Amino acid sequence: MCPPALIPYKPKNPKTRLSSLLSAEEREQFAAAMLEDVKAAVKDAMCSPVLVCTELFDSDDVQVTITDADLNGSLNAILPQSVGPTLIIMADLPLADTASVRRVIHTDKDVAIVPGRGGGTNAIFLKEPSRFRVDYYGASFLKHKKIAEDAGLSVDVVDSFRLHTDIDEPWDLVELLIHGTGKSRAYLEELGFVLSTDKGRVGVERKR
Amino acid sequence: MCPPALIPYKPKNPKTRLSSLLSAEEREQFAAAMLEDVKAAVKDAMCSPVLVCTELFDSDDVQVTITDADLNGSLNAILPQSVGPTLIIMADLPLADTASVRRVIHTDKDVAIVPGRGGGTNAIFLKEPSRFRVDYYGASFLKHKKIAEDAGLSVDVVDSFRLHTDIDEPWDLVELLIHGTGKSRAYLEELGFVLSTDKGRVGVERKR
Repeated sequence: MCPPALIPYKPKNPKTRLSSLLSAEEREQFAAAMLEDVKAAVKDAMCSPVLVCTELFDSDDVQVTITDADLNGSLNAILPQSVGPTLIIMADLPLADTASVRRVIHTDKDVAIVPGRGGGTNAIFLKEPSRFRVDYYGASFLKHKKIAEDAGLSVDVVDSFRLHTDIDEPWDLVELLIHGTGKSRAYLEELGFVLSTDKGRVGVERKR
Repeated sequence: MCPPALIPYKPKNPKTRLSSLLSAEEREQFAAAMLEDVKAAVKDAMCSPVLVCTELFDSDDVQVTITDADLNGSLNAILPQSVGPTLIIMADLPLADTASVRRVIHTDKDVAIVPGRGGGTNAIFLKEPSRFRVDYYGASFLKHKKIAEDAGLSVDVVDSFRLHTDIDEPWDLVELLIHGTGKSRAYLEELGFVLSTDKGRVGVERKR
């Protein structure tokens, strides 16, 4: 099995909630490093990454689909045409590893969903993608669970903190500096980020 | 296998970071409800809960150890005397379920560690507890990994968002209202808490 892994990706002005810590250029490079980590994890798990971008974007090593629709529109245009098992995975999951992606794609249910922090959806694996449609934003995990159930599809909720941890806010960088092993952690360290501890709580600070 | 599950528990004035949402009495009842959820999960996974309290506390159904030491001191007094496999699990993990606890206690390594949010440690399973000592607070996950490795013990890092999600801050309640199925979720709902969505981000609000 070598299912496509659709990875929605925003190359321009990404991760605006990290603006207090990273410049616009650094945010772009950081998002690109996280994407590399996700690509590496899905490739190791024998999936074929396909970037889904709303802006022109060149990639040397993976297929890119350019669309002018939003996240839901672009994925919902692709799914009805998809014939075999398909993974959708977000680009801001730098803790993704082979084992966690394998747990998703080796589900014994029709659909596997990985919830993100705060009610979001970080990954969806669909054995029959044409029977599903996505509905991101808000409490999308609950919406996706209902969409699957309404379509008569059995659902596996995959219990992984590595795939649950999307990097959006400054305090999320703590998780990356503790648990990351790939390019995005290396990039943060290159920029001078280190763990700090204040009154027993762990944060990050930039040393230079 | 029926290992003891040591559960450190603070019955008085718990969860102070939830003070903006819950009164002192509500925080005590909420902490007690979370403890019930953790006890139910470890019992279902065939562990025997033992509460480790620094204050007098009566329980009808489980063993209670009262200590005047702090968290580290009390656990480090118990571990050298423990002869068989032992689980240590925090009381503020209301998403704990049988499957996630089983993944911890069925590790093929000497030690299984479940990282908490922000570098903490939410559960530790020790096949030979006398060879380990705990060092909570700060980035305790990294400390515990090193303590195990320094003692020549192999380490399994268990990838579970259900056990990763400790409830400390107001926004953590979102996770409980989305993924909880036990007494603490029911208690929050009884108090009138519901999910709210503002600009695509999910939060909680108290309706009454």
